[in-house]
Amino acid sequence: MFSWIKNKWNSFMNNEELKRKIYVIIFEADTPLGKAFDVALIVCIVLSVLIVIMESVISHKLVGLSMRIVEWVFTVFFTLEYLMRLYCAKNPRKYVFSFFGIIDLLATLPAYLGIFFAGAQSLMVIRVFRIIRIFRIFKLFSFLKEGQLLLRALYDSGRKIVVFFLFVLVLVISIGTVMYLVEGDVEGSSFNNIPNSIYWAIVTMTTVGYGDITPVTPLGRFLCACVMLLGYTILAVPTGIVSASMIKTGGKKDEKPCPHCKRVGNEPDAVYCKYCGKFLEEIEY
Amino acid sequence: MFSWIKNKWNSFMNNEELKRKIYVIIFEADTPLGKAFDVALIVCIVLSVLIVIMESVISHKLVGLSMRIVEWVFTVFFTLEYLMRLYCAKNPRKYVFSFFGIIDLLATLPAYLGIFFAGAQSLMVIRVFRIIRIFRIFKLFSFLKEGQLLLRALYDSGRKIVVFFLFVLVLVISIGTVMYLVEGDVEGSSFNNIPNSIYWAIVTMTTVGYGDITPVTPLGRFLCACVMLLGYTILAVPTGIVSASMIKTGGKKDEKPCPHCKRVGNEPDAVYCKYCGKFLEEIEY
Amino acid sequence: MFSWIKNKWNSFMNNEELKRKIYVIIFEADTPLGKAFDVALIVCIVLSVLIVIMESVISHKLVGLSMRIVEWVFTVFFTLEYLMRLYCAKNPRKYVFSFFGIIDLLATLPAYLGIFFAGAQSLMVIRVFRIIRIFRIFKLFSFLKEGQLLLRALYDSGRKIVVFFLFVLVLVISIGTVMYLVEGDVEGSSFNNIPNSIYWAIVTMTTVGYGDITPVTPLGRFLCACVMLLGYTILAVPTGIVSASMIKTGGKKDEKPCPHCKRVGNEPDAVYCKYCGKFLEEIEY
Amino acid sequence: MFSWIKNKWNSFMNNEELKRKIYVIIFEADTPLGKAFDVALIVCIVLSVLIVIMESVISHKLVGLSMRIVEWVFTVFFTLEYLMRLYCAKNPRKYVFSFFGIIDLLATLPAYLGIFFAGAQSLMVIRVFRIIRIFRIFKLFSFLKEGQLLLRALYDSGRKIVVFFLFVLVLVISIGTVMYLVEGDVEGSSFNNIPNSIYWAIVTMTTVGYGDITPVTPLGRFLCACVMLLGYTILAVPTGIVSASMIKTGGKKDEKPCPHCKRVGNEPDAVYCKYCGKFLEEIEY
Repeated sequence: MFSWIKNKWNSFMNNEELKRKIYVIIFEADTPLGKAFDVALIVCIVLSVLIVIMESVISHKLVGLSMRIVEWVFTVFFTLEYLMRLYCAKNPRKYVFSFFGIIDLLATLPAYLGIFFAGAQSLMVIRVFRIIRIFRIFKLFSFLKEGQLLLRALYDSGRKIVVFFLFVLVLVISIGTVMYLVEGDVEGSSFNNIPNSIYWAIVTMTTVGYGDITPVTPLGRFLCACVMLLGYTILAVPTGIVSASMIKTGGKKDEKPCPHCKRVGNEPDAVYCKYCGKFLEEIEY
Repeated sequence: MFSWIKNKWNSFMNNEELKRKIYVIIFEADTPLGKAFDVALIVCIVLSVLIVIMESVISHKLVGLSMRIVEWVFTVFFTLEYLMRLYCAKNPRKYVFSFFGIIDLLATLPAYLGIFFAGAQSLMVIRVFRIIRIFRIFKLFSFLKEGQLLLRALYDSGRKIVVFFLFVLVLVISIGTVMYLVEGDVEGSSFNNIPNSIYWAIVTMTTVGYGDITPVTPLGRFLCACVMLLGYTILAVPTGIVSASMIKTGGKKDEKPCPHCKRVGNEPDAVYCKYCGKFLEEIEY
Repeated sequence: MFSWIKNKWNSFMNNEELKRKIYVIIFEADTPLGKAFDVALIVCIVLSVLIVIMESVISHKLVGLSMRIVEWVFTVFFTLEYLMRLYCAKNPRKYVFSFFGIIDLLATLPAYLGIFFAGAQSLMVIRVFRIIRIFRIFKLFSFLKEGQLLLRALYDSGRKIVVFFLFVLVLVISIGTVMYLVEGDVEGSSFNNIPNSIYWAIVTMTTVGYGDITPVTPLGRFLCACVMLLGYTILAVPTGIVSASMIKTGGKKDEKPCPHCKRVGNEPDAVYCKYCGKFLEEIEY
Repeated sequence: MFSWIKNKWNSFMNNEELKRKIYVIIFEADTPLGKAFDVALIVCIVLSVLIVIMESVISHKLVGLSMRIVEWVFTVFFTLEYLMRLYCAKNPRKYVFSFFGIIDLLATLPAYLGIFFAGAQSLMVIRVFRIIRIFRIFKLFSFLKEGQLLLRALYDSGRKIVVFFLFVLVLVISIGTVMYLVEGDVEGSSFNNIPNSIYWAIVTMTTVGYGDITPVTPLGRFLCACVMLLGYTILAVPTGIVSASMIKTGGKKDEKPCPHCKRVGNEPDAVYCKYCGKFLEEIEY
């Protein structure tokens, strides 16, 4: 009987026809069934996340228990779906280490961890990342293209932003220490150690300003005013970086290669290629 | 006698001459009477909104009662005006479902709802939207053009902003849950459930920073600092989007098509068309 | 003896030579004496403003009295200086109604008003506006040019900003009223009337976020989160307006007219005029 | 024996071979030994800063004592390193007054000052500035280039920002005084003197909004709303300045002079010089 199971398993694992059928349903959204599956998946994800969020609010025992049960139904469904994806993926290894592969795994793990560690099941909200699939269902590839433009603009500015943050880090450590020296000795001061002062410096320079830690001495308030005006000015730097990058990226997105010399870089309104001088094809809008 | 009323009503409803006269007064602002009507309307709107606002402050009985009476005078006036507009509109159906048609209806409804539901009359402040008509009275069409440019810049960036907000939503749900796990167990913590933690995440990432919910544990403060620096960086993204869009829109607004080849795209100061080389007509400033 | 005084006065008032000498000293900064006068004036202004500020802190009687005396010395000095300016100005009427003429008058008035109304002398800090004269002393006309560029950028965006603020006003009145309806009934709520709720809406949408008024109900917090995200987005609008305007203004400032056709508009790096095709003179940097 | 020491000292001080060897190790990062030294240095700096920060948190006596000892080990190491740098520098005078020379000195001084003045050793966090050397170790010159671009953009906007801050200073002093007059008389008000009111004005206009000082009277709240909307608008100014400058600088950074006519200004993707029409050399990416 064991060999019979083994045979069945082998024929199941090598059933390329079945794999292809399931692949079309769960990986694509072109067929009615594939689209229905994706819509159902999004609904499950949203419901599941809402339940995790609501569970932290409700203290009623019976409601809590029924929520737990629904949660486990979703978890089992997501686990089966994950195994299905592994089964029918053209390259299972590649899927496992892809962005969505990791998210799909992380979406099920916390529920199982929650058996051993109390609280871990709250991490199930990570499922919310799976919602990004929504773009595929509605064929909103152009939306994703916008997202890619945003990411490209951020990536292009990446090095500038790294340098900027290193500078900010050096600055908040220095400012935090100075404020600790100035305000630390005041009775009942919240600047009671350097980490708290650094936290205050970050709260102030990002203009968040909770007000849980505020200076009370005249000198402290004067320094604080300087820090705020400094934060005001350097707030402009990341905005400037991203704006400049976005204007540049935005300016580039209409470019397409010349049909003759294949070089990219002509402005969107050019009639003749500026590299080879030949007539560019009419651009349809 | 009923048929006499019916006859009068019919002749009134079909009196095109009267309709045209009223139309000129309440829909246009070119005649002295039309202008006077519009100015009176704006004054009524401002007074009416001010009374609704003041009513929430004053607890004196007699003053409150007299305010109520004035409110009802305005409401009756606005209702009559709405019926008048319906009567004389060239296409009543189109007016009812236009932006101003809906606002005009919403401006009168809350008063009548207030008879049945206490508090509903405060919604009368929606009348403030009718103030947008001010642009028509003073013939400030160019102001409206500026507004349209703003709206166009926002609309052009619409898809980018939708993607951005979906990303922010996914982010604040994840951050809120992590903070709930980190800070939720502290005695008397305000991170007592996930919705509150998400609210905190939004308060922090938008740099509003009320300070009604703040982390107190060292780990919580460290995570909070990371969230603030993240919010600082991504604050730059919508600004960059709108700036880039506004620079693009601003650059385009002076362009007009070449009178010879009908192509759009010459810079505002060009004398010869850059596509066909012919002389562009003199542009008057 | 009265006629003797009258004669002296007339000859003094018509002494054009004396007027010219005083004019060079107090209105110009080219001669050593004129420069010394202006430096002394700035020092007096700074000291005088510092004394007004410090007076609000110090409660010691003797120190307060001596400060009052110093204040009056400065006030008498500024009053005499104002009369001098009136005396020697080429066109006294024009001076009185100029920006600096009004500031110079406002700088002395509060001290005299302070005799009758307690507290009015604090308004003497308006003298701080006279400090703008500092640019003239150090011949920092280029700094003023930068300031004019800033003002021009703000002025160019003026109409867009007016439309934007009208929109914000309509928005905060509506949002404030909705929050008053949602949160107003809660025991001890700070949303106790519509003006307070509008104040809260402005505090939130500008991302200032004092935290003196915060929502406590779940619905209130949800609406608050929406308002914050809205504020986050529309914060980008004025920044975009000013950025776009500044880039435009900045781009224009390097342009100078063609020496042949006198038309302005060639790009800073052009060699041949794009309007008449003639050779542009070498531009020195 | 004294002359023997003197001889040894002189030969040590003039041992150019040794100087060159040490120079390669501590000033450069091309050899394995030089790189190892720099990595060790960064590790020491980070550890040393972390210890200073942690020392302000920990109150345990024994741990505090051992931290002190480690601190002194680092201080002695940094002092020796500073002397070494002085010894082997090609131009010691130039090193002492260079940016890193001053930072290296300031990194050791506070420890010695801490013997005489309690608290001074907290200033050792200034060592964090030495971390900027990290760019050299990893040969991240391009990162430094990005940093220089940031600094150039800030420097180019320097004058505009100076004018802007003078304007902000005049504004906050005036606003602070007006709020002191309006809110100062209220029982238990935090607007109890002008410096506090100015501090509040800065907290508000930078949109930090701690909430430690907030208006309570209706007039105060109305003025506060105006100040916030004003701050909202002028927040756009520095952002606009830096954005405009960064777009300009960013546009310029890819330009290099034409090899034929030596003029700068061709766009990065040009093949033929736009000034002399000759073929530009191939640009390697």
